[in-house]
Amino acid sequence: MNVLVLGIDGYIGWSLAMHLARRGHKVSGVDDLSRRRNVANIGSTSALPILDLHERIRIFKRIYGSDIDFYKGDLLDYQFVTDVIRKTHPDSIVHLAEQPSAPFSMIDRDHGVYTQHNNVVNTLNVLYAIRENAPDSHLVKLGTMGEYGTPDVEIPEGFFEVEYKGRKDILPFPRQPNSIYHLSKVHDSANILFGCRVWNLRSTDIMQGVVYGTRTAEMIEDSLLTRFDFDETFGTVINRYCAQAVIGHPLTPYGKGRQRRGFIDLVDSIQCLTIAIENPARRGEYRVFNQLDEVYDVTELAEYVVQAGRKLGLDVIIKAIPNPRIEKEEHYYQVEHMHLKSLGFKTTRRIEETLDIILRDLIKYKHRIMEQRKSILPRTMWARHVIPTMENDMAITNK
Amino acid sequence: MNVLVLGIDGYIGWSLAMHLARRGHKVSGVDDLSRRRNVANIGSTSALPILDLHERIRIFKRIYGSDIDFYKGDLLDYQFVTDVIRKTHPDSIVHLAEQPSAPFSMIDRDHGVYTQHNNVVNTLNVLYAIRENAPDSHLVKLGTMGEYGTPDVEIPEGFFEVEYKGRKDILPFPRQPNSIYHLSKVHDSANILFGCRVWNLRSTDIMQGVVYGTRTAEMIEDSLLTRFDFDETFGTVINRYCAQAVIGHPLTPYGKGRQRRGFIDLVDSIQCLTIAIENPARRGEYRVFNQLDEVYDVTELAEYVVQAGRKLGLDVIIKAIPNPRIEKEEHYYQVEHMHLKSLGFKTTRRIEETLDIILRDLIKYKHRIMEQRKSILPRTMWARHVIPTMENDMAITNK
Repeated sequence: MNVLVLGIDGYIGWSLAMHLARRGHKVSGVDDLSRRRNVANIGSTSALPILDLHERIRIFKRIYGSDIDFYKGDLLDYQFVTDVIRKTHPDSIVHLAEQPSAPFSMIDRDHGVYTQHNNVVNTLNVLYAIRENAPDSHLVKLGTMGEYGTPDVEIPEGFFEVEYKGRKDILPFPRQPNSIYHLSKVHDSANILFGCRVWNLRSTDIMQGVVYGTRTAEMIEDSLLTRFDFDETFGTVINRYCAQAVIGHPLTPYGKGRQRRGFIDLVDSIQCLTIAIENPARRGEYRVFNQLDEVYDVTELAEYVVQAGRKLGLDVIIKAIPNPRIEKEEHYYQVEHMHLKSLGFKTTRRIEETLDIILRDLIKYKHRIMEQRKSILPRTMWARHVIPTMENDMAITNK
Repeated sequence: MNVLVLGIDGYIGWSLAMHLARRGHKVSGVDDLSRRRNVANIGSTSALPILDLHERIRIFKRIYGSDIDFYKGDLLDYQFVTDVIRKTHPDSIVHLAEQPSAPFSMIDRDHGVYTQHNNVVNTLNVLYAIRENAPDSHLVKLGTMGEYGTPDVEIPEGFFEVEYKGRKDILPFPRQPNSIYHLSKVHDSANILFGCRVWNLRSTDIMQGVVYGTRTAEMIEDSLLTRFDFDETFGTVINRYCAQAVIGHPLTPYGKGRQRRGFIDLVDSIQCLTIAIENPARRGEYRVFNQLDEVYDVTELAEYVVQAGRKLGLDVIIKAIPNPRIEKEEHYYQVEHMHLKSLGFKTTRRIEETLDIILRDLIKYKHRIMEQRKSILPRTMWARHVIPTMENDMAITNK
């Protein structure tokens, strides 16, 4: 199949592109490299060193023999989107090219408006460009489990049957997102559903859990590594804990630490996206996959990291800090996720194994995390109250 | 109270500003006059002649003795929004300043992106400016009943209790809008709910039915009239029917003509908005009002217009045309709307009386409708199929 990966320079984008190319798909990619800029602007960097994208593509070709075409550009530029789609004739378009950070969107008005404008308009551009140039293309769009928030009922896969005042209907499950970023994904989902219903497009909207991990099978040399963010803005919880563990920083759940979320290993995220691509939605169909493997609370996860660290001789402690976010810190959380399983998804490895791999990878690049350690603790507040800090920076021991 | 009306040059904005000023409120208004431009750009005009806004404000002051302050500017300009809010210290901000047309948003990619960008970012700017400068201000935001679409269950006022798999929760009612424009209002509602929940703002989100009418009590001279659009893009169904009736054009329901919607007289829309302003939401509260008076299907409405026309000697016929939209043409439709009634809302007059007033007003300006009659029939298609036309333009008789 021809697959166009939007956001090919990102954490998932690069991993997915390699995997698809190795499976024999013709892969093209788009990126404006804004993620590298945005991470630099908040004063951090990828813990794992990543090469320039052209360089990685060259090395991938040397090792695996497959070409990956790269188009540098911004999806806000409609002419660019149109040109790329006309050139690449994609059977599937995987849209991973959004500003992906909730804290980034909550910094201030400019970051909030940037996030919604960027994400909503670039997805509209993709929808219009598909309608005009490739109406049969399957749009695989990365949403987030965060679109749903934390309702007090089980979360279905996108739609649910409702009985209200004696009548029944199947309705989209209501979204209650907890950041300006999460809202942007909710807006996208509504726009895409409309595109399928009214313009007869086809899409799989992926409500993805939090992804963790450093490795996929394709990364047989460190020159093929994908980025790994550990700062408060772009780093997600498990990855951030692992970075903390490696530099002797306490693991820092927010608040009560009983926030429950869905999680998925990077290698399984790639597996799921591949399943979606290779089993496309029908014309006119909008389907939702809840893409997660296990549900944990964030303190439970910290305990897994403590255990995994201990095996490698790391002395890791847990120290909760005030929650910078406005969110429920203890709540019900049950999620349906059968669609991917019914298409053949199987868990690749247990979280303990993956934590071991992450920690080993990070130990090798510990100095890079140490250099940027000030980026780990939260500075972005959902509302104006106490700014969480450790007692002082010395809480970080560097052994 | 200090009330800031965003979109004061519009159909509802001008009517509301006069009404509030006459009730003793200190009224300020904002507009970028884009509605006049957008209507001119699609080749139409207001059926009723409207003066320049400064002129209307001057005449209003001569007649009623009250000042209305006007700030010309664009809500996409955050500095402008901030400056106006700091200057006017509003107790309530009524946000009517959006691109309000579904067909306009469906013309092409540029009009669609313009609509979502304009509406979503200008509402975000208002939310951020309130948070930063006037967190106690009550935001009265104009949404639309079209946000809900046409579900097969009764439509509650914003929220409903759900039982799903043995557990219960109160959730936002799912939105299923039918155009890029309606989607923009859905995005706004999600953003505003977030602003109330996380930033402790206060808002009333008005899901308004289709408004019809030419007059409020303040319009004792034609120089104080508000605009009246009748073209396929900015004209809504009853107003468009009345314009058709006056020039001898058949009334043109779309498709089967059994689309049911909520409707409200202009004078009652103003009454409801005034109730919302004078009975503000509490801090942190996001409340939804379904602002409609009666539910009709669009063929039933055409029959009302035929009757009202007959009394004035107009020979009006009904002739359905192919539906340019993708929507259910026959469907269940029940809407809860108790919140405004519980705050004292009472219907001012029956639809028959209002239709008589509209037709009399339009007969006086019939030549203006005749001149722009080509703007009445739909040219904007939701998907690419047959373009509806009357057999030919001669179907319009000019008696």
